[in-house]
Amino acid sequence: MSAIRLDYTNALADVVGAEHGLTEADLAAAAAAAGPALAAIQARRANELRWMDLPYETAVHDSIEAYVASVREQFENVVVLGIGGSALGNTALQTALGSPYHNLHPPAGTPRLFVLDNVDPELIGEFLEHIDPARTLFNVISKSGGTAETMSQFLIFRQRLIDAVGEQEHRRHIVVTTDAEHGVLREIVKREGYQSFVVPDGVGGRFSVLSPVGLLSSALVGIDIKSLLAGAAAMDERVKGADFADNPAAIHAALQFGLHNLRAKPIAVTMSYSHRLKDCADWYAQLLGESIGKRLGRDGSEVFVGPTPVRAVGVTDQHSQVQLYVEGPFDKWFTLLSVAAPDHEVPIPTAFPDLEGAAYLGGHTLRELFQAERDGTRIALTEARRPNVTLEVDKVSAHTVGQLMYLLEVSVAMMGEHYRIDAFDQPGVEAGKVAAYALMGRAGYEQRRAQIEARSGGAPRVV
Amino acid sequence: MSAIRLDYTNALADVVGAEHGLTEADLAAAAAAAGPALAAIQARRANELRWMDLPYETAVHDSIEAYVASVREQFENVVVLGIGGSALGNTALQTALGSPYHNLHPPAGTPRLFVLDNVDPELIGEFLEHIDPARTLFNVISKSGGTAETMSQFLIFRQRLIDAVGEQEHRRHIVVTTDAEHGVLREIVKREGYQSFVVPDGVGGRFSVLSPVGLLSSALVGIDIKSLLAGAAAMDERVKGADFADNPAAIHAALQFGLHNLRAKPIAVTMSYSHRLKDCADWYAQLLGESIGKRLGRDGSEVFVGPTPVRAVGVTDQHSQVQLYVEGPFDKWFTLLSVAAPDHEVPIPTAFPDLEGAAYLGGHTLRELFQAERDGTRIALTEARRPNVTLEVDKVSAHTVGQLMYLLEVSVAMMGEHYRIDAFDQPGVEAGKVAAYALMGRAGYEQRRAQIEARSGGAPRVV
Repeated sequence: MSAIRLDYTNALADVVGAEHGLTEADLAAAAAAAGPALAAIQARRANELRWMDLPYETAVHDSIEAYVASVREQFENVVVLGIGGSALGNTALQTALGSPYHNLHPPAGTPRLFVLDNVDPELIGEFLEHIDPARTLFNVISKSGGTAETMSQFLIFRQRLIDAVGEQEHRRHIVVTTDAEHGVLREIVKREGYQSFVVPDGVGGRFSVLSPVGLLSSALVGIDIKSLLAGAAAMDERVKGADFADNPAAIHAALQFGLHNLRAKPIAVTMSYSHRLKDCADWYAQLLGESIGKRLGRDGSEVFVGPTPVRAVGVTDQHSQVQLYVEGPFDKWFTLLSVAAPDHEVPIPTAFPDLEGAAYLGGHTLRELFQAERDGTRIALTEARRPNVTLEVDKVSAHTVGQLMYLLEVSVAMMGEHYRIDAFDQPGVEAGKVAAYALMGRAGYEQRRAQIEARSGGAPRVV
Repeated sequence: MSAIRLDYTNALADVVGAEHGLTEADLAAAAAAAGPALAAIQARRANELRWMDLPYETAVHDSIEAYVASVREQFENVVVLGIGGSALGNTALQTALGSPYHNLHPPAGTPRLFVLDNVDPELIGEFLEHIDPARTLFNVISKSGGTAETMSQFLIFRQRLIDAVGEQEHRRHIVVTTDAEHGVLREIVKREGYQSFVVPDGVGGRFSVLSPVGLLSSALVGIDIKSLLAGAAAMDERVKGADFADNPAAIHAALQFGLHNLRAKPIAVTMSYSHRLKDCADWYAQLLGESIGKRLGRDGSEVFVGPTPVRAVGVTDQHSQVQLYVEGPFDKWFTLLSVAAPDHEVPIPTAFPDLEGAAYLGGHTLRELFQAERDGTRIALTEARRPNVTLEVDKVSAHTVGQLMYLLEVSVAMMGEHYRIDAFDQPGVEAGKVAAYALMGRAGYEQRRAQIEARSGGAPRVV
């Protein structure tokens, strides 16, 4: 049995009905489409889609380990200055593989980890009041080096460091992850002599978790990045040439496309029955939303496609969202993330034996309760004819998380073929960025600013 | 100018087009429907919808303050054992009104706050390894007293307390919030002599944040609950008799209903341009999803209605979800949460003056950047014809958060009238719960268990 399994029984027509589930004919058509889609992806691997080969970059891995060894026990805090693809993977790995109480009680010799993926002045202002830069290593991450949020953070923390430890010494507190040659951040690295790592070409932000973007902060807090990469490589081996029926990435992509396009389910809920995996669902929300949400098809026509990712946590959201999931519109399909053998058991003591509402729990464990609730929700969804699949790992480990992430990356790349859009660009982010530059008064954006200021819009309606 | 404003200019047809925005005729129809809807809610206020009067429960407020004074400085940690409506409001209030680094550096004399809203054995197991029960106060919250998750947690932590501090002393470490008379938890309070507070009748879980459910943990960590309730009362005064054009709750409900039903936008995105308000969006996701997501209409017919709430954070999700929001399907409308005057400014230092990509930021503040990005996103959404509104507070304070929550509660209650469903039940949660009881072997559920075990389903499909 594999260490990660995709159970899609409950997405099929013979379980949830032909109105909501996929038929054998649908699967046969999906299998026929999967071969060319997988071949198309693999063909672009060597030149364009270099993220596919990240699991094999052993020299990068060695250089990260060497750097981590060189700074060992020198810092109380590691702070990631990054956003989007330069933050979501870092958080996902730490939540999956660190303790939820890591920052309260960091293991001896291990720094705390903060991923500052916002520029809300109230968040950063509070951070500056609580964290001592003199005891902190800042990992500045931006592929382009042009991310306004990250550059602003860099300028703020750089100055704080210089004030605290001096011009010379501050350089030891900054490590930059950016393009090998291009961009402002690379130029600054050269001038200041900061330690740096490279985001290779062909590795877009949302596909960068297995590059130094995700690996460096992980290695700094003690995550076994070698095992993470080995897991990803194992998944690559498993999916790269496999037939549809044996290929979890191909099947996952086909389910997403089929349930959306053939069964009118535009909402993809990832419900993590694992606290550890909940931020993998958040990471996947970017991967899916930003890759497939597109105005233009490959032929240049307007298509306005894209599933909407929704992140949920089991059992927590049973008491928040499951009412809607079970009784609301038939516009969703569900991926439950599941852990077969969690690391803890936690017995529930027996007490108040004459009070049935308490007594029935005694003698069980939280593990049994948690898994019974997961199974109960799965049964309720299925009986309400809501297609659902389960992605299950034996245990949450660096190896299985590496497998899971690589599986989802390949699946989304294949979805790009099915939806016939470019899964690797993000043109829709530009408009808001340009408007923000204009409002900030950046040189070259004067015309856009004038345009914004001249907008009449409607009469304001405010209450 | 009010301390909280709803700007709905960009939800109107003359801004985003008649295909996606509401026309003046739509608004006139909504205004005509709003009067009876508001009257129907207010008529049920005295008997059924007792949550509407929570802002005026001064005796409850006094009893909470007295209890908080009696335990002052005795505990290092406060732990909420609750889930769904017994947790989301607590978290929302602490995120809004406490420091993001509260638990790392609690203010002198103030306990840390943990809201344990899951039974994942890996989460609770880790918690048990890190937190000393002898220094901890546990607030057990369940209206019915029958919530399996909360009862299991209670049994586990109760035993840990008894082991740590003894049978007698452990009682000082537990305070229960439950029904006044009914349920296992009330019976246990009577037997054990625990301190307790009451969840009144007519206050469902998702409408309970202004009852002791949300107030007690808030008061324990120093939140000004008097001001919170005063804010809610001020909003009650503002909306309870107001005409449509002056009533932000009525307009908000009409926008949700109109954009969903007249303009085919089933997805309601709440994007918080405020770290402090992000968990209010999470709290609202339950309020909206569980209240309106219903199989049956009031006439008993199957309707399968309900908007899907999606939670996003600005600017963070500009780098994750905004690509989809701007370019994807026209199936969403957006509520931006905004703060006009944040508590912090955070200047961005000038450096690298010859590198334009860094230089243009110097001399600005994070506040300017943050607000320019918010405005940039709003412009991008609007120009892409995506209807969006902004709910803005002057500052995030107990008073404005009280206003915001009460506004949204009344809005959702009014939506129940528009959608013609019961906004105050949650029958769809039952099926999963019963299946979980059956799987746990609870007495009385043997038949369901046999039924589940006998299910053949399809042949399992696992890869």
